[in-house]
Amino acid sequence: MKGIGASPGIAIGKAVVVEKKQPRLTGVILQGESDVQQEVQRFEQAVTSAVAEVKAVIDTLPADDGSTEVLEIQIELLQDEQIISDVVEKITSEHRNANDAVMEVIAAAVTTLHNLDDAYLRERAMDVEEAGNRILMELDPTLKPSDLIVAENTVLVGEDITPMDILSVDITKVIGLVTRTGGKTSHAAIVAKARGIPAVVGCGDALASVKNNDILIVDGGEGALVVNPTPEMLHEYTAKKKEFTSQANALGALKDTVAVTTDGVRVKLMANISNAADLEASFAFGAEGSGLLRTELLFMGRTTLPSEEEQFEFYKNAALQAKQKPVIVRTLDIGGDKPLPYLHLPAEQNPFLGYRAIRICLDRQDIFVTQLRAILRASAFGDLKIMFPMISNVSEIEQAKAILENVKAALRSTATPFNAAIEVGIMIEIPSAAVMADLLAREVDFFSIGTNDLCQYTLAVDRMNEQVKHLYDPFNPGVLRLIQNVIEQGNKHHHHMGMCGEMAGDVTATLLLLGMGLREFSMSAASIPYVKNLILNTSITAAQEICRKAMSMRSASEITQYLQAVTKQ
Amino acid sequence: MKGIGASPGIAIGKAVVVEKKQPRLTGVILQGESDVQQEVQRFEQAVTSAVAEVKAVIDTLPADDGSTEVLEIQIELLQDEQIISDVVEKITSEHRNANDAVMEVIAAAVTTLHNLDDAYLRERAMDVEEAGNRILMELDPTLKPSDLIVAENTVLVGEDITPMDILSVDITKVIGLVTRTGGKTSHAAIVAKARGIPAVVGCGDALASVKNNDILIVDGGEGALVVNPTPEMLHEYTAKKKEFTSQANALGALKDTVAVTTDGVRVKLMANISNAADLEASFAFGAEGSGLLRTELLFMGRTTLPSEEEQFEFYKNAALQAKQKPVIVRTLDIGGDKPLPYLHLPAEQNPFLGYRAIRICLDRQDIFVTQLRAILRASAFGDLKIMFPMISNVSEIEQAKAILENVKAALRSTATPFNAAIEVGIMIEIPSAAVMADLLAREVDFFSIGTNDLCQYTLAVDRMNEQVKHLYDPFNPGVLRLIQNVIEQGNKHHHHMGMCGEMAGDVTATLLLLGMGLREFSMSAASIPYVKNLILNTSITAAQEICRKAMSMRSASEITQYLQAVTKQ
Repeated sequence: MKGIGASPGIAIGKAVVVEKKQPRLTGVILQGESDVQQEVQRFEQAVTSAVAEVKAVIDTLPADDGSTEVLEIQIELLQDEQIISDVVEKITSEHRNANDAVMEVIAAAVTTLHNLDDAYLRERAMDVEEAGNRILMELDPTLKPSDLIVAENTVLVGEDITPMDILSVDITKVIGLVTRTGGKTSHAAIVAKARGIPAVVGCGDALASVKNNDILIVDGGEGALVVNPTPEMLHEYTAKKKEFTSQANALGALKDTVAVTTDGVRVKLMANISNAADLEASFAFGAEGSGLLRTELLFMGRTTLPSEEEQFEFYKNAALQAKQKPVIVRTLDIGGDKPLPYLHLPAEQNPFLGYRAIRICLDRQDIFVTQLRAILRASAFGDLKIMFPMISNVSEIEQAKAILENVKAALRSTATPFNAAIEVGIMIEIPSAAVMADLLAREVDFFSIGTNDLCQYTLAVDRMNEQVKHLYDPFNPGVLRLIQNVIEQGNKHHHHMGMCGEMAGDVTATLLLLGMGLREFSMSAASIPYVKNLILNTSITAAQEICRKAMSMRSASEITQYLQAVTKQ
Repeated sequence: MKGIGASPGIAIGKAVVVEKKQPRLTGVILQGESDVQQEVQRFEQAVTSAVAEVKAVIDTLPADDGSTEVLEIQIELLQDEQIISDVVEKITSEHRNANDAVMEVIAAAVTTLHNLDDAYLRERAMDVEEAGNRILMELDPTLKPSDLIVAENTVLVGEDITPMDILSVDITKVIGLVTRTGGKTSHAAIVAKARGIPAVVGCGDALASVKNNDILIVDGGEGALVVNPTPEMLHEYTAKKKEFTSQANALGALKDTVAVTTDGVRVKLMANISNAADLEASFAFGAEGSGLLRTELLFMGRTTLPSEEEQFEFYKNAALQAKQKPVIVRTLDIGGDKPLPYLHLPAEQNPFLGYRAIRICLDRQDIFVTQLRAILRASAFGDLKIMFPMISNVSEIEQAKAILENVKAALRSTATPFNAAIEVGIMIEIPSAAVMADLLAREVDFFSIGTNDLCQYTLAVDRMNEQVKHLYDPFNPGVLRLIQNVIEQGNKHHHHMGMCGEMAGDVTATLLLLGMGLREFSMSAASIPYVKNLILNTSITAAQEICRKAMSMRSASEITQYLQAVTKQ
């Protein structure tokens, strides 16, 4: 059975199926005003109990446990003011009962998050859904899962396994995780990774055939699941498991090792994050700061723009958590494909080629100025940098910088502290920007290459489109030449030149990018040890030779084959 | 009042408003079978009379009149088998009367054409609408416009003025045309251009205020309309008119002049066309063949794919009409944005980045093979070349060429004649193709740059999107660098290297493109004299110097200003 490998490693154990009862709409309409008041109270108590239950699990964990963050996010979501006020509103004005009000408010929030291009943000929908389910269980205890009987060597199997599911049982006995839904960045995957439990997610409907006590082999690296294996397969995977463990120990030992090539060139490895909590988790993988702090989460799942104060707290938290390590804050990167209902953006025929990111910000200066004020104020608390997305020409940079200067002047006039020397950079993710990197370099302090969009536009392929996604290939020579040009021009003009697209965390690309001259890679934190391991075992001279050879080839398949071969050496 | 300049020149005259009665649905449902038979006959007679009426107008025109083609297309549309059989079907199976059946069938065909990205094809909707209206007038003579009283110096003003409107009156007295709707390539515009009548189209609702006998100044170059001008304005425009006439005479004289620079470099000027009829019209402007024959019209406004025979006739006609001049046939360039209902393509979130053109053809080889067979068979009758659109990598070319070779082998096996040495080229319109032009050049005989799509993808801007179209600028230095790279690589490897996007017909770009090394320009035929005039008056050395200077600038606005200044010298 194939799924998505979400946490590497091999587990061989017995299945325990986590069954969940589905909450249902009751359709009840409350009659009297006293019923309404009582239902609001019942809802508020349910929230309180749910929070207490999650806190109780946190208390059982050691202080430095990697899963704590995930549970703290659960608590934040349970206490989310927008969700709470929406539910209360539904009870009081529509006279729905607490169960139905919660279900409908959560469903609306989940739908918004589901329609997103960004895999990371899309999976946050699951967290919101879980928070909703926890409240529903408090309202109706029959929804709570029956206690699981967890013996040694248990592999948990379920529709979606939440961090609470994992952490409520005796986790020392859980050796693997398998789910029907979910992706690489679902919180179940994060908890599994934090505890080194192999996990395969997104197995699909085939998983329904797995029963309690089936023998399972979970291969979290390959994303494979074997049900009731033959003795030969058991033998094969036992050997594979042993090999993985010794390799994993070696990678884990790299956490505090600095990434330096064999010929002494220092490389900086950073993490892409969506909030301050992600930062701490990324340090566990050895991240040296963040090359991309997305700010979209701040603006989503709400009915109004976040205030300057709210944003300030968010950026300040990131600055403080980073402990003087750099954090690159990307200004709002939202548009037709990531809808914010309260902005009333028009529907578009081709949202990826439409009104988004800096294009909105330069138009809607109210949004932009508030965000820049909040980031600048937060820059007094740590090493923040500002990065503008979707730049296609010089004039956009000039406009954005002029607005930033106005904001700085306003802060100065009220003696508000900020880092006056804050660095300003741009994402290079539109082909024209990559082609004229030399011209843009003079305007900013740094570049960061966004390989996902750059590849999408350079090849004219929407990678979310099933019919053409096979044409989306970042190793297309046209795409690679643009990347090489940006790295060369960036190095010529800047003291730092990074990449924050998926390619930065793809080990197949590591040696090529090193050879092109890239020295700052920002990626999903869990990829850092793998990339670091490659860097520690190569020389720049070798990487340059690999780059020269790869760039002489004429097709993505040829290049990928070659790079995979040299990377495995 | 501003509109779109559709035919250059200045006209000063009196308004005659063309009023049209709107046909209406009657809602009648026929009762007896005999009524149905009678209604079918009535419809068929109406078609016959409408054809006869158009033919009568043609007979009044001299044999070489440029407007004849447009009227012949009217006759073809009136006799269109698909439309006729759809109308008869509606009458016989739905028992609608002839009026309603015609209105509904025409409305459906117009809607399909309206939803298109291509301005040229979109305006063909007007021709279909006019054909429908002519039939409706025969069915109900009260719909016919009252005879216009046309005195000397008449400017016709109307919702949309059809070629029949213009040609049914004493055209020697019509000196100008103004319409509320329509664009540069509407047939009214074509007829106006063919007769050298200044025209402004697409004036919008403001035109409603113009009454019979208002004094109008029509500036077809600037797209301006002045209603009841002041004496000063009359004076100014009379002078402008004189200047235009002497310039126009000079341009008209260029028709048979070969485009050669002052230092003796030969440049080829060709026309973009949609069918064989366009070819003859383009020769009147001095076109030396066609750098782009679109094939989409063949596939549109129908319910099934066109057969090989139908396609063969279409391409053969073009080959014959071209009289040994070259015609580059672009294979089907259709997709989510240009829907063909019978292909049942899925709706897409970003159709411009989706399943279209060669991407469909390589998947749906039934469509592709039929088209290639028809083109190859037609290549026995003239100088046809084949061009593949939307190429993003080497593998697509290899696949397309392999299919072409199979088709050739099949034709050989049945001893069907075709040009075995037919040239094969690609559109360069995706950034990756432009970046790796050197690699792609080895695979084909020629390139043609499609500047519209190339610009759109390079800047990540959907130019149909009102919110971002200001960012669409082909003079963006990133776009220009890609174009320059393609021209240089094309010249290095090929004996011909063309451009068929809008930029090829934009006089602001002519000297720059000459300086980059472009020697084949394909454009809307009416632009040819203007581009030719520039070429005749420049040297390649001067153009190279202009190119060097423009390419050192960092923004589209700077470059455009500079080019406009040097072009006006």
